[in-house]
Amino acid sequence: MEEAKVTPWEVTGEVDYDTLIKEFGTSKITPSILESIKKHSKKLHYMLERGIFFSHRDLDIVLKEYSEGKKFAIYTGRGPSGDTHLGHMIPWIFCKWLQDAFNVDFYFMITDDEKFLCKKDLTLEQTNKLAYENALDIVALGFDPKKTFIFADTDYMNQLYKIALPIAKRVTASQAKAVFGFTNNTNIGMYLWPAIQAATCFLPSVLTGKKIRTLIPAAIDQDPYWRIARDVAPKLGFPKTAAIHNIFLPSLKGPQGKMSTSEGNEATIFTTDDEKTVKKKINKYAFSGGRDTLEEHRKKGGNPDIDMSYQWLTFFEEDDKKLKKIYDDYKSGKLLSGELKAILIKKVNTFLKQHQKNREKAKKLLPKFILKD
Amino acid sequence: MEEAKVTPWEVTGEVDYDTLIKEFGTSKITPSILESIKKHSKKLHYMLERGIFFSHRDLDIVLKEYSEGKKFAIYTGRGPSGDTHLGHMIPWIFCKWLQDAFNVDFYFMITDDEKFLCKKDLTLEQTNKLAYENALDIVALGFDPKKTFIFADTDYMNQLYKIALPIAKRVTASQAKAVFGFTNNTNIGMYLWPAIQAATCFLPSVLTGKKIRTLIPAAIDQDPYWRIARDVAPKLGFPKTAAIHNIFLPSLKGPQGKMSTSEGNEATIFTTDDEKTVKKKINKYAFSGGRDTLEEHRKKGGNPDIDMSYQWLTFFEEDDKKLKKIYDDYKSGKLLSGELKAILIKKVNTFLKQHQKNREKAKKLLPKFILKD
Repeated sequence: MEEAKVTPWEVTGEVDYDTLIKEFGTSKITPSILESIKKHSKKLHYMLERGIFFSHRDLDIVLKEYSEGKKFAIYTGRGPSGDTHLGHMIPWIFCKWLQDAFNVDFYFMITDDEKFLCKKDLTLEQTNKLAYENALDIVALGFDPKKTFIFADTDYMNQLYKIALPIAKRVTASQAKAVFGFTNNTNIGMYLWPAIQAATCFLPSVLTGKKIRTLIPAAIDQDPYWRIARDVAPKLGFPKTAAIHNIFLPSLKGPQGKMSTSEGNEATIFTTDDEKTVKKKINKYAFSGGRDTLEEHRKKGGNPDIDMSYQWLTFFEEDDKKLKKIYDDYKSGKLLSGELKAILIKKVNTFLKQHQKNREKAKKLLPKFILKD
Repeated sequence: MEEAKVTPWEVTGEVDYDTLIKEFGTSKITPSILESIKKHSKKLHYMLERGIFFSHRDLDIVLKEYSEGKKFAIYTGRGPSGDTHLGHMIPWIFCKWLQDAFNVDFYFMITDDEKFLCKKDLTLEQTNKLAYENALDIVALGFDPKKTFIFADTDYMNQLYKIALPIAKRVTASQAKAVFGFTNNTNIGMYLWPAIQAATCFLPSVLTGKKIRTLIPAAIDQDPYWRIARDVAPKLGFPKTAAIHNIFLPSLKGPQGKMSTSEGNEATIFTTDDEKTVKKKINKYAFSGGRDTLEEHRKKGGNPDIDMSYQWLTFFEEDDKKLKKIYDDYKSGKLLSGELKAILIKKVNTFLKQHQKNREKAKKLLPKFILKD
């Protein structure tokens, strides 16, 4: 087994999430936290019930404050280096649920500056254009335009920079090197950048003039970014940013690492993929937990725990009963690998068909969501 | 003699300007360059004739292009860490003359971000407030509001950041350390900052959509800042920034270093000082080239070359004949140190009286000059 490596730029190996919680110093989402959430949201989102969101920082404080009448704000974002893929959508789908369940503001930062700075071949025009392409995927998810604020960094820098400066003043190059792995060869734009990213943690407080704690739903590899924000928050008089972490949507190719475009596009499913492409990708690349022969499969059954079609369904099939039946049928050998793939293909295509319709409509709605200087 | 040290943050020791030209790799302003200037400006400014502006980078190219019909733009600026003092005014007075003589645009950058980042005790509110205080001194000098663009960095960052990013992408932390003396303890805001400062070199091109070369009049200690801009200019398709350097207005206390507020305020003359204060400061602190006794002074004469009152007059007395007479009279012993001080006091107070009147009027005019996002 390849040793796991989890940083904001790289996820490789088979990730043990309990170990990650220890390494990162976060907390496990306990049954008592789930109970607290349920008190306000009535139902639990399936991503909480299934442990897709599994770790947190100060979520207990967020919930306590909420029950005392103090609203939080949701903050997450996107680095626009290409089209949105399904792995990006996981925390966003959850954000939409959070916004509805808690009736809170949602801030979505699109880091066209950072992607320009760290990707050799991308121009600023490209990352800025991609920013607004990616924003369509947020709008398509049905967020409330009155409570949702989307911005591309380079079009909102007047505001962000003012908040980033007092953060930057308190972070040395040494600290940035230690937390983000910068070297002397890293460009000076990247050096400032963690302060820009941290600035949005405090943006809701700045814009409202109240002390609003932000809650960041994101894959756990992004956690280091927020450490700096949490460190400086008390010094600047802001509440410490809280976080809720999801596990990675695995690569279709197998349980190692996460789905990402850096591994090449062929096994990555984008929100803009058509039905045929999705079908082709899943049929060709989805790692199977099935047996070598039909006979053996019928007799001994498949292994859903390593079957990527099944694993993906745990992210996208909301219905617990349906999911359970698929699990049982696959394990018993009743359901064949091809049939399981077909279920996933249908699920993904149904989701994407609706999403793509919404995405078209989003082009008109987008301006309502955009924060600009 | 204390060894000279000249960096953007510190000027100490007795500066040898010929050595500086060699060390910095700039060029001396030659008679032939003065001739080229005169072709367009008719008269030469006394700061050029007296060698107060003594060094340059690519000024010959600027003049050649100008004679071919290509206009340049003037760029200089101010770090708002306190009130404006007379040392700051030297390049600005020259900029006003340049604008009139060549009928060109003038960009004035006020770096409230940098002063906040590098001065431990200053808040961003303070440096931003000081920025607009300092801007009054520019407006008071009579610049053309149609051709003069003043901005405080933090109020114009949306524009500046977009230009700074491609610069920042091409500068590593190593380079910033080497050129600016940053260390691992320097904050990450300062690391980006040279790219912000360099951005304004290209701002006239960006705003006009033409390739406009910038010419930076500034004291020579600021030269390192522009090296990065000059390095990256061709890579980004902009003309290389040119520069024209002035010698330092010396401290009243003597020929070592430059007048600055970091040496303490007691010998620094601010544009807001009243007549009595100016009189007191010059009488108390102006280093004298006179003899120990009246008798000896009358007999042997004073030394204007080390007398700070005389040296200051070379910066502020426009009339060559008057200046020559003062020099001769002091050298011969006809003019006493107290009398020489009185001449400087009168000169400075006459200048400041008018300047302060203009500065009051500038409060109304200021908005016409300000660039904001």
